[in-house]
Amino acid sequence: MERVLSRDVAAQSGKEVLIQGWLHKKRLLGGLNFILVRDRAGVTQVVVEDAAEVEKLRGLQIGTVVTIEGQVHEEPRAPGGAELRQPKITVDVPVTDESPIEIDKPLSHKPENLDTLFDFRHIGLRSLQEQKVFRIRAGLLRYIRSFLTDHEFVEIQTPKLLAGATEGGAEVFKVDYFEKEAVLAQSPQLYKQMMVGAFERVFEIAPAYRAEPSATTRHVSEVTMLDIEMGFIKDHEEVLDMVQDITYYAVTNAYKDFADDLKSLQAPELILKDKFPRYTVAEVHELYTKATGTDTTKEKDLIPDEEKWICEHAKKEQGCEAVFVTHFPKEAMKFYHKLADDGQTVLWADLLFRGLELATCPMRENNYQKMIEQMKAAGLDPEHPGYKYYLEAFKYGLPAHGGCGYGIDRLVEKTIGLANIKEAILFPRDINRLTP
Amino acid sequence: MERVLSRDVAAQSGKEVLIQGWLHKKRLLGGLNFILVRDRAGVTQVVVEDAAEVEKLRGLQIGTVVTIEGQVHEEPRAPGGAELRQPKITVDVPVTDESPIEIDKPLSHKPENLDTLFDFRHIGLRSLQEQKVFRIRAGLLRYIRSFLTDHEFVEIQTPKLLAGATEGGAEVFKVDYFEKEAVLAQSPQLYKQMMVGAFERVFEIAPAYRAEPSATTRHVSEVTMLDIEMGFIKDHEEVLDMVQDITYYAVTNAYKDFADDLKSLQAPELILKDKFPRYTVAEVHELYTKATGTDTTKEKDLIPDEEKWICEHAKKEQGCEAVFVTHFPKEAMKFYHKLADDGQTVLWADLLFRGLELATCPMRENNYQKMIEQMKAAGLDPEHPGYKYYLEAFKYGLPAHGGCGYGIDRLVEKTIGLANIKEAILFPRDINRLTP
Repeated sequence: MERVLSRDVAAQSGKEVLIQGWLHKKRLLGGLNFILVRDRAGVTQVVVEDAAEVEKLRGLQIGTVVTIEGQVHEEPRAPGGAELRQPKITVDVPVTDESPIEIDKPLSHKPENLDTLFDFRHIGLRSLQEQKVFRIRAGLLRYIRSFLTDHEFVEIQTPKLLAGATEGGAEVFKVDYFEKEAVLAQSPQLYKQMMVGAFERVFEIAPAYRAEPSATTRHVSEVTMLDIEMGFIKDHEEVLDMVQDITYYAVTNAYKDFADDLKSLQAPELILKDKFPRYTVAEVHELYTKATGTDTTKEKDLIPDEEKWICEHAKKEQGCEAVFVTHFPKEAMKFYHKLADDGQTVLWADLLFRGLELATCPMRENNYQKMIEQMKAAGLDPEHPGYKYYLEAFKYGLPAHGGCGYGIDRLVEKTIGLANIKEAILFPRDINRLTP
Repeated sequence: MERVLSRDVAAQSGKEVLIQGWLHKKRLLGGLNFILVRDRAGVTQVVVEDAAEVEKLRGLQIGTVVTIEGQVHEEPRAPGGAELRQPKITVDVPVTDESPIEIDKPLSHKPENLDTLFDFRHIGLRSLQEQKVFRIRAGLLRYIRSFLTDHEFVEIQTPKLLAGATEGGAEVFKVDYFEKEAVLAQSPQLYKQMMVGAFERVFEIAPAYRAEPSATTRHVSEVTMLDIEMGFIKDHEEVLDMVQDITYYAVTNAYKDFADDLKSLQAPELILKDKFPRYTVAEVHELYTKATGTDTTKEKDLIPDEEKWICEHAKKEQGCEAVFVTHFPKEAMKFYHKLADDGQTVLWADLLFRGLELATCPMRENNYQKMIEQMKAAGLDPEHPGYKYYLEAFKYGLPAHGGCGYGIDRLVEKTIGLANIKEAILFPRDINRLTP
């Protein structure tokens, strides 16, 4: 008999079916025993009355793998509205040890329980509730790829093993590479810009590495980044439009396709418009100072509370909890950014969603000579072999371009309303965690 | 005026259009000058007669970024069947240095020219011919993801930074991880098996690292792997069926959607059936020995020439150049493989395509006690902390499962008929190459 998945059991009412899955819950009520059997589509309730069948389950724990044939009966109180009766049970893989964590109810995501959550992630994900996070994550990635492909972005894979740190500043991991030293890529920044010269529009979804020495809710050493880069743009706004449209497409589709899952995960109601409000850093300072009495007008960058505040503000005033903050001061610029005409601000915007920066979306300097000057101004040596290929791409012609580095883990975190980026990562890595 | 892409120029016959792109070719024939302008969709021919316009191009080299307004005229000899006349040229980014490699014709992929190819990859990909390889690669990935999603596989991202080498044997790269030692993942093997316990069916497409000390056409230190794993399988055949169906779907779609590109890349004609022939290792030895006179019947594994020969054989005899070779001898087994009932062979098959192994497709041992025994037999210590989580997944119930590690770079190489795996990788890494 062919296996029937839990979601299809109810449609077989009155018939004999075969299910396979994990013993997910046992309720022994004297003569009447209920078990729940989990498979990839959910759970099926099975009523076990026959003494010999009950005996087969004696001493067996959650996780036991079973094959069960039984008759489908409508039962409004059972998951999916049906249950199996008169089952014939085969134990395929007996489990005799009690599960180290309870998986038939939502796991605790309280800060003090997160270490337990991650230590038992490999078992905890057997909870149907926990799985939802990662099904939504996979969905978001699908929407993003589909959108980008429709907009003629070519998916690329760039190397994560580099000859040296080329972006300056941030911490890198060093790798022993055949008795030479290599570093793990912090981003595909230089590669994706070079590829604009070939494909105009490229994207990559891949791991990126930051040797973050801090142990906070925001710091992880291995993240999944979406990197996009697009050439022949008219202006910086075109980059923002693209990042806005990707985000709108991905998040609204998630809220449509995973409506029930998001509800059960207690995700906030989505307040989003297809055009995200755009504020300059100076405007945010001004609005925030006026509203809170805390004077930030002398600050160059946004302070963390402003990131939260401006999203709340835009949600209330504009009906949209995603915003762009633009025109960062040039003190914060990286060598590959492009200065605005005012000479004081950078054509660089951050996408903020529900109080968190999801993506950095700059336009790039594309003039070869200016790029060399900007490298020097940033204290970098344009003659360093690590920049040879990058600079050649400019020398042989790169059009106006821009793109973004977009944190997929952060997108998942904020789409669902998780409190910690690590909850959005299957097996998170930080300064203290290399397992499981 | 809105930009028109090269592919859409011919449809605007008689109208004034604006194109943007790179100067791709200059043909100066005295009074009459042709230029080709490249964009992401191809090239547009532009006839430049006006002396002032010709003057703008003086001294400018291939790669120069231009914006051109002109009138579209039908011209059967021009790419796409139309050309621009009476152009008004704006030079957006002048290039004054001659391109280090010619990009208006196919680049040489001869073995002696490969280093040049890779040294100038960032420029060489401006050749429309070179780009095709990576557009086909992106297509193959799309087909694979689409197929797997339709078959209820959940996409996962597992960590590439591990606490220790857990698969035994092969060479690993070591990473300095906050004064501890980490290693780069050679595969997501243990993680994907653990995730069978949660999602039943998972897949990941991600980089994998092998410190291959050989400098051959087959060895690279960073590869892109498709890893799949599926639970509740009836038998090993079910894994092979899935890998076969993925491959058939991806390759036949590539040959349909990229027919012209594959032809111009001189890809071989595709000889494929939707059921791939399956031979045991012993059968291959016997057939090969009979056909060639070289006795391999005493060999345990396949010799390289047998891999080529059996694909040729199946192509001629069965009309299919993809085959599975099954029942590898237990001498070659890894600790997580499952022994066949005969006790002598392993439920492990290789997928070969056009003479090369693309994927290894074993069934896994899923019994906790047997797994521990097999680890010990392989000289591994089940008490090692690196196996703690993995073994817990078994202890708390894993169903019969199997999957594959599938080399994406190899699939691209063989689908197109390239001679070297590195040609299928954007920026290949090997013992001698960490740049560009």
